[in-house]
Amino acid sequence: MVVVMSPDATDEDVAHVVEKVESVGGEAFVSKGVVRTIIGLVGDIESFHHLNLRTLKGVADVHRISDPYKLVSRQHHPDRSTVWVGRPGQQVPIGPETFTFIAGPCAVESPQQTLEAAQMAKSAGATILRGGAYKPRTSPYAFQGLGIAGLEILGAVGEATGLPIVTEVVDARDVAVVAEHADMLQVGTRNMANFGLLQAVGDAGRPVLLKRGMTATIEEWLMAAEYIAQRGNLDVVLCERGIRTFEPSTRNTLDISAVPVVQATSHLPIIVDPSHASGRKDLVVPLSRAAIAVGADGVIVDVHPTPETALCDGPQALLGAELRDLAQAVRRLPDLVGRRPAVAAGAVS
Amino acid sequence: MVVVMSPDATDEDVAHVVEKVESVGGEAFVSKGVVRTIIGLVGDIESFHHLNLRTLKGVADVHRISDPYKLVSRQHHPDRSTVWVGRPGQQVPIGPETFTFIAGPCAVESPQQTLEAAQMAKSAGATILRGGAYKPRTSPYAFQGLGIAGLEILGAVGEATGLPIVTEVVDARDVAVVAEHADMLQVGTRNMANFGLLQAVGDAGRPVLLKRGMTATIEEWLMAAEYIAQRGNLDVVLCERGIRTFEPSTRNTLDISAVPVVQATSHLPIIVDPSHASGRKDLVVPLSRAAIAVGADGVIVDVHPTPETALCDGPQALLGAELRDLAQAVRRLPDLVGRRPAVAAGAVS
Amino acid sequence: MVVVMSPDATDEDVAHVVEKVESVGGEAFVSKGVVRTIIGLVGDIESFHHLNLRTLKGVADVHRISDPYKLVSRQHHPDRSTVWVGRPGQQVPIGPETFTFIAGPCAVESPQQTLEAAQMAKSAGATILRGGAYKPRTSPYAFQGLGIAGLEILGAVGEATGLPIVTEVVDARDVAVVAEHADMLQVGTRNMANFGLLQAVGDAGRPVLLKRGMTATIEEWLMAAEYIAQRGNLDVVLCERGIRTFEPSTRNTLDISAVPVVQATSHLPIIVDPSHASGRKDLVVPLSRAAIAVGADGVIVDVHPTPETALCDGPQALLGAELRDLAQAVRRLPDLVGRRPAVAAGAVS
Amino acid sequence: MVVVMSPDATDEDVAHVVEKVESVGGEAFVSKGVVRTIIGLVGDIESFHHLNLRTLKGVADVHRISDPYKLVSRQHHPDRSTVWVGRPGQQVPIGPETFTFIAGPCAVESPQQTLEAAQMAKSAGATILRGGAYKPRTSPYAFQGLGIAGLEILGAVGEATGLPIVTEVVDARDVAVVAEHADMLQVGTRNMANFGLLQAVGDAGRPVLLKRGMTATIEEWLMAAEYIAQRGNLDVVLCERGIRTFEPSTRNTLDISAVPVVQATSHLPIIVDPSHASGRKDLVVPLSRAAIAVGADGVIVDVHPTPETALCDGPQALLGAELRDLAQAVRRLPDLVGRRPAVAAGAVS
Repeated sequence: MVVVMSPDATDEDVAHVVEKVESVGGEAFVSKGVVRTIIGLVGDIESFHHLNLRTLKGVADVHRISDPYKLVSRQHHPDRSTVWVGRPGQQVPIGPETFTFIAGPCAVESPQQTLEAAQMAKSAGATILRGGAYKPRTSPYAFQGLGIAGLEILGAVGEATGLPIVTEVVDARDVAVVAEHADMLQVGTRNMANFGLLQAVGDAGRPVLLKRGMTATIEEWLMAAEYIAQRGNLDVVLCERGIRTFEPSTRNTLDISAVPVVQATSHLPIIVDPSHASGRKDLVVPLSRAAIAVGADGVIVDVHPTPETALCDGPQALLGAELRDLAQAVRRLPDLVGRRPAVAAGAVS
Repeated sequence: MVVVMSPDATDEDVAHVVEKVESVGGEAFVSKGVVRTIIGLVGDIESFHHLNLRTLKGVADVHRISDPYKLVSRQHHPDRSTVWVGRPGQQVPIGPETFTFIAGPCAVESPQQTLEAAQMAKSAGATILRGGAYKPRTSPYAFQGLGIAGLEILGAVGEATGLPIVTEVVDARDVAVVAEHADMLQVGTRNMANFGLLQAVGDAGRPVLLKRGMTATIEEWLMAAEYIAQRGNLDVVLCERGIRTFEPSTRNTLDISAVPVVQATSHLPIIVDPSHASGRKDLVVPLSRAAIAVGADGVIVDVHPTPETALCDGPQALLGAELRDLAQAVRRLPDLVGRRPAVAAGAVS
Repeated sequence: MVVVMSPDATDEDVAHVVEKVESVGGEAFVSKGVVRTIIGLVGDIESFHHLNLRTLKGVADVHRISDPYKLVSRQHHPDRSTVWVGRPGQQVPIGPETFTFIAGPCAVESPQQTLEAAQMAKSAGATILRGGAYKPRTSPYAFQGLGIAGLEILGAVGEATGLPIVTEVVDARDVAVVAEHADMLQVGTRNMANFGLLQAVGDAGRPVLLKRGMTATIEEWLMAAEYIAQRGNLDVVLCERGIRTFEPSTRNTLDISAVPVVQATSHLPIIVDPSHASGRKDLVVPLSRAAIAVGADGVIVDVHPTPETALCDGPQALLGAELRDLAQAVRRLPDLVGRRPAVAAGAVS
Repeated sequence: MVVVMSPDATDEDVAHVVEKVESVGGEAFVSKGVVRTIIGLVGDIESFHHLNLRTLKGVADVHRISDPYKLVSRQHHPDRSTVWVGRPGQQVPIGPETFTFIAGPCAVESPQQTLEAAQMAKSAGATILRGGAYKPRTSPYAFQGLGIAGLEILGAVGEATGLPIVTEVVDARDVAVVAEHADMLQVGTRNMANFGLLQAVGDAGRPVLLKRGMTATIEEWLMAAEYIAQRGNLDVVLCERGIRTFEPSTRNTLDISAVPVVQATSHLPIIVDPSHASGRKDLVVPLSRAAIAVGADGVIVDVHPTPETALCDGPQALLGAELRDLAQAVRRLPDLVGRRPAVAAGAVS
């Protein structure tokens, strides 16, 4: 930590800061400049936080220097992690060696629609099935998902197709029932800072897919992952899904740089959601290609057998030729960045 | 709703849209331009949503024309509402005739700190006490609030000072216990889109203070209020607390225009939080003055007897001279915009 | 300046940084932490810039501590400045004692329209006339202003009404001719970082109204003012006119906090443009009230005798009742924040 | 265009709008809804703009439907364009069949540094040389470029290496001299809305590289290109270089989606600048890979023989291993998206 004194700070002000720092066992190194004095702090950062240094007389600013997250940081865990999703013997990896293709319908609407979407996804090369039973919607008048009935459909379709299931949980009270039916719990963009939910999924004994808040900095996102990790669950996969900017031509702006930025500071795997980032199906294939090339550990994509009748996000769901293009990209491109498509542990690639 | 066809749409494409609209009982008015055709839809907007018109062949875009919220809209409720906070006989209004000053510590730390802060607030003219027992924090390592012990302290201090209490609830599972101790439930910026929590506070039988999501549009914010209203609770007060922008000199950017914008479209009262918007105590007084002048229905401000030792947001808490300046502004300025300071129903102004 | 070393930096890396700093006559204070080492630099900041410290081995980050602007800073010029606009004997102040009301049409369209707008402005209490002869427009197909003919109209109307003139200049090649006809040169939001233009107006011998770039930080804005000041012209008035954010209900988001933030760090006067900030005439009066209350040194507002036929920004031009409301606010409110309306030096208030 | 009436608009208000539209030769199609009436306009959009419909009584909103740009639109020019850069017989294409690699130093500092950087660029496979002689800098105290001396160095190095030159012009008064020495004129991010400069480069008879304003929407960017095209110059290449967002870990946020979005609406080529987008050299290679994969027509990258001593943007300049990685990506990846590396017309690939 660095304390910057204001130009009119007195020697007493500086001495008072030093004294405070030393009172909690820290060391303070004073650099007296022509205009300003700065003080470098060495010691336990948590104890410094409690000093409220910013409120002391003569203090202009306080800069934090180290990363505020620990368990998810690469600092003491230099190797990037692999998270395994699915039942023993059928687990699919998400990590640095592979490229994982996750696909499925935005919302579970019926057994048939879910099964068809799952078969489309599987034929295109997907090895994990996504699908929403609980849908957080901006409007209270929009379709909110089938709830438990949706979970049961997902479970059955997962059984039938052999694909592990990832599905969103939006309320801490639902974590137990969702964990019963799903192989991986998704925390959505609107709930990234719902700390009660983060703690609940941290306790649930399932891998977690943590979407970036649409206006969260990368640091805040990693802090949200830290909440989960703190409960003893390090099986967290991050998902970049676009951030809110002034540009209106896409629903959100895919922050593709977030992939290498996260990989430089955290050991957690990170995938990309081009469907929700853009909201436009004509962008899903080029953005998926970009995700592979930039080094993402996977993509998660909306598919729907009949987008015309979809109850949620139909305009971004892939079908036909676009899905074939995506399948081809997922088969061919990962090799160029030194990865292989991720398949279930027991499966033949 | 207006459907915009792409330049290469055929007559069949247009006919197909018209047919779909008519199939759910709507009317479609076709305007054929030189380059594009547009179709105006008249009828039930919910049924149009289910048509997924954006996925039809030849459709370039679909524009929504009417506001998506209903219960909180001024359209069928032209008079602005007043929300009353506190026990019968001691209720304080928040609404168009008055200016309500809410103050207190960011976090409840101890009985004494809370009582002192409440007395400071009251002397400065505040008529509602704020204070946090549950604190949503970006870092899992930061102080998370005293929980139920904090609620009890708040209740006792409210009793002692005669001030109604507003406090934040961060988890749907805590709504009942918070509603027992507090006169008004606050939903914080990080939970504005936590729809389960919105529904729970909608059911709790207490007025709600709904902070704007730090990256929510005004429309999304009013949709969040609609979630609460839908459960039968129209006693919702909105609170503008700054939005996230690229400007780093303040913690957030106070969107002062949101006050008249909201008042033009919704009947709900709206107040301003200059402490969290700016994160700087030197800005709290000028921004509070601006809030009064722009026509806000109140302000909510952090005060703390000893900011140096505050466990949360010390740098923005007012004290001494600044608090006196604020007290003076709150006494003098509301009159200039045709308002009087809000006092409890039975109190002598 | 503070150099933050990465956790894996070696002692040699640290020594190399120290050596570099000392090679240009600076001092380096090393604080060795458990995880990281930080180095505080004392000396001439410009010479440190040339070291490219960020590229050195083991360096994780470099933080600048002091403000990068000098001439416009309050550090060596603690009193806030007053800028005088107009010919000797008729000068109108913009500064900390007064509140200056500037009004006029967005674009000069004809002698009659300009004269009528000027009379409206004057009756409402304005003491400086604004009007555009050169209009920077996003579309090459939109009205671009009357050019020199417009300057001549402005000059004549200024003469007739006794109001000093402020008008925009968009090209360094036009500075001389604009300075002949106008009392104050405006640099618009799109040109805030047009450094050739800034230098040209710095040389022109007229006070300058410098609008904030719609996506400029306050620091970048003050650096733009520094460009003008560097040419020997310290008569610069800043104008906050809204920044670009994600909120669509106003054209821009008025950053009202910029007023006290600028006043805390720079001695230059700062005014507010509520018309361009919001793009909505129903917001101009409340935002003007907020500007006065927050402590701005003035406002600049669009008025037009017949907004229906305006060639530019008609929807935001005031007329009739709204203009009367604004006139009343400008007469009554400044007194509450210790200011008087600004009138020409020789005029009777 | 679509006019949306407010809920309380009268029949007279609607009739007045219709009359206005017909008065300029347009047609108005009225759709009367339960709550609101909307009016579809057909005819010449420019004449509608002059009606200021938004100021008419009863009008709530006016939506533009068609794109505001014409010459750069794909609507009447469905095939994507190729722009050729360099002297006859040595021209390098930028367009849909190829992938063009442009590299060079951020700023020209000396003949030797420029030559070495050019040789590095060429060895890595670059076929156009970039280099800045005029540098727009936020600080008036920063290095502003060598000016004409820099242009002469660039010319000589271009001669020596056989590489066509692209360089920035920041002032309309310099366009002629820059066009004498350079093969392609760059308009930088800060000048994207400097309309006088856009017109000057439109008249200069050289292809133009138009960088996106750091806070410009894609539509505003295409309107800037339209300014150039209007002067008869359709040889415009767009360059995505990151937009300003709230995320601090990169200097800007690369809007990778802009590539397919632009390609869907404009026939102009579009390239990506990963160096300025990220400001971090560790991100240049992954972002360049992403640019190729998403379908960009090229990249432009900073290289410098000794980044430690660079006078501008040293921290983002590539060297050694990173440059080799980039060279390999540029050689191998374009083929996967159906492109070949762009070489000079007469050169052997």
